Amino acid sequence: MAVLFGRRRRRPGTEVPRLRSRGDAVSTTKVDLHELAPSTDEFLGQVAQLQLGFFLTLTAAVEGAPTEADRETLAGSAAATLVKYRDLVAAIRRRHDDTEPFLEPFAAQRDDFQAIVRGEDWGQLLLGVYVTRGFLDEFFAEVATGVDAADARELAPIVAPTPGEDPIVGILQRAIAADPKRGSSLAMWGRRLLGDTMLVARSALSTESRVLPDDSRVEPVYTELIANHTRRMDALGLTA
Amino acid sequence: MAVLFGRRRRRPGTEVPRLRSRGDAVSTTKVDLHELAPSTDEFLGQVAQLQLGFFLTLTAAVEGAPTEADRETLAGSAAATLVKYRDLVAAIRRRHDDTEPFLEPFAAQRDDFQAIVRGEDWGQLLLGVYVTRGFLDEFFAEVATGVDAADARELAPIVAPTPGEDPIVGILQRAIAADPKRGSSLAMWGRRLLGDTMLVARSALSTESRVLPDDSRVEPVYTELIANHTRRMDALGLTA
Repeated sequence: MAVLFGRRRRRPGTEVPRLRSRGDAVSTTKVDLHELAPSTDEFLGQVAQLQLGFFLTLTAAVEGAPTEADRETLAGSAAATLVKYRDLVAAIRRRHDDTEPFLEPFAAQRDDFQAIVRGEDWGQLLLGVYVTRGFLDEFFAEVATGVDAADARELAPIVAPTPGEDPIVGILQRAIAADPKRGSSLAMWGRRLLGDTMLVARSALSTESRVLPDDSRVEPVYTELIANHTRRMDALGLTA
Repeated sequence: MAVLFGRRRRRPGTEVPRLRSRGDAVSTTKVDLHELAPSTDEFLGQVAQLQLGFFLTLTAAVEGAPTEADRETLAGSAAATLVKYRDLVAAIRRRHDDTEPFLEPFAAQRDDFQAIVRGEDWGQLLLGVYVTRGFLDEFFAEVATGVDAADARELAPIVAPTPGEDPIVGILQRAIAADPKRGSSLAMWGRRLLGDTMLVARSALSTESRVLPDDSRVEPVYTELIANHTRRMDALGLTA
């Protein structure tokens, strides 16, 4: 685990909080993402669609922002997502003249998942993007290391999570400070999203064999991602 | 007129169609945009908001696109608009720590205008963006030459219309070919939009003095823009 995710730690060498005590056992269990990783084509299609979905959702958030400064911040975040989507579609096009057959299969997941992420109001939507994009960007950056070696080198810079703190954090912190009662309901919303996000992540693995990988092999992959999810919620003062 | 707009002609030296015969008289009437141009701050705030509005509308068009290829094209078009918005906000920030007072006054116009542009369905929205953005991008590139000289040099590359044919054209052409009966209603829609677009353009001029410039001085500025509007409609086989 330490090797698998170590390079994205903010402070290498420090102990990463673990949600499960069996995380320690994990470091001796080699998780081979080459066995679990989807084909490069499937990876590109799914991640492109997820990024497009986040772009559309973030743009919806731009419209509802309370100030022009927040609008600019969210537009910038949407732009970063759009760049990823376009880079991924360009990667499909380098492999195939017609991108449609590689994108279309993941269109329904894109829309269904974003319908969940958007929640019922602007606050839920923002937390939704923050939590689910944070998780999935880290997850897919990890999965990208498991596709064919030449492809992995090409894809790594495209799907690398944007460094530094998500600019959405500041907006969410102010929204929660302005209405502290919202904290507990948003905390519950964050927990609910985690489950749906993990289902999306799981759907990306081993789709070629059409056999879902069993839990004991996939869960180690999630352990650090869940710890990072907890840190994300902590940054908002919310209980994960 | 020839001097004023000549550098954006596709084929310099060829005769540009004119809607009004008095266009010939115009070339001897020097239109001095320095007198009509808004302040740099007003220019930046208004154009930034208009670009943000087009970005939001184009993103709404992404959601309704019939194919993934169209979605990609429209997302690319939205991206180009977003770049302009962000560059304009950056230009405001180079001048003022707080951008809010310069953006907020044009927020209502942004939303009111885009509510018109979006029309009643996906086809109207696409034609709306194509026609109104086409007109206003050319208009504001022209107005940019009338602000302070140092500012004009900085702003010209930011607000320059994207070269080449608008990628929306291909999508619209296919939509009209698939449903030829729509042509006449879309032609009417294009004519209606032109009026609203000209009101937005006019609102940009001489706002500092709070006196609307009289028609005889502003109309020459519009003459070539209207000819370009006609060419845009022609490209779709629609009567302007």
